[in-house]
Amino acid sequence: MTFDVENIKFDEIGLVPAIVQNIETGKVLMLAYMNKESLEKTLETKTTWFYSRSRAQLWNKGETSGNFQVVKKLSYDCDGDTLLVEVVPKGNACHTGAESCFYNDVVNENEGKQRDIIHYVFDYIQKRREN
Amino acid sequence: MTFDVENIKFDEIGLVPAIVQNIETGKVLMLAYMNKESLEKTLETKTTWFYSRSRAQLWNKGETSGNFQVVKKLSYDCDGDTLLVEVVPKGNACHTGAESCFYNDVVNENEGKQRDIIHYVFDYIQKRREN
Repeated sequence: MTFDVENIKFDEIGLVPAIVQNIETGKVLMLAYMNKESLEKTLETKTTWFYSRSRAQLWNKGETSGNFQVVKKLSYDCDGDTLLVEVVPKGNACHTGAESCFYNDVVNENEGKQRDIIHYVFDYIQKRREN
Repeated sequence: MTFDVENIKFDEIGLVPAIVQNIETGKVLMLAYMNKESLEKTLETKTTWFYSRSRAQLWNKGETSGNFQVVKKLSYDCDGDTLLVEVVPKGNACHTGAESCFYNDVVNENEGKQRDIIHYVFDYIQKRREN
């Protein structure tokens, strides 16, 4: 698949938000920012690279923790200003040790139980495959 | 659940990115920006409100198209600078008519078929519930 990085609209400081999602469970893990170089390194290495705004440098997710994210799918949205990176995570995404950075609930009507059923079925299918 | 909007770190122009995800299928639908007022309106009306940077005004997703997004869960990430809004969508998210704004693939190793199985099982469970 050919890809022209010119399709991506980086903002005035050269960054684009990248949503990272677990491709198997659908869980949204984190959001971080990529510049052109980190996007290219992500495509090249098939692991996620971001640009840290606070440290003003590139970082390869997992380089210190070992929790790499293996990129299986990368897409951009209709107006080219957001990336969606679907990964198989090799460990937790959050620096706190949580699976996902989104663990602070403001509203939770808990009607999403259907997705919990799906996770149950998914685990069941996985186990059947393995055994 | 009490919630202090002070936990959210709005950026220098008063915005925070909000990822919108279908709570039932796990599909990431879009990313848009909220300011404090649109976050409050989202919590109050349980439908998504955003701030349009190009039009410099609040908008209620679905007000013209009818494709409202009913908010079932809203969370913020470990450093409080991104929101995740899990919704039941009443129609397509994208202005192009697509279900999700993320339809431009750069990489797709197509190894996410496991989630396709999950969608199949989900549809099956739904049908059994309805009949």
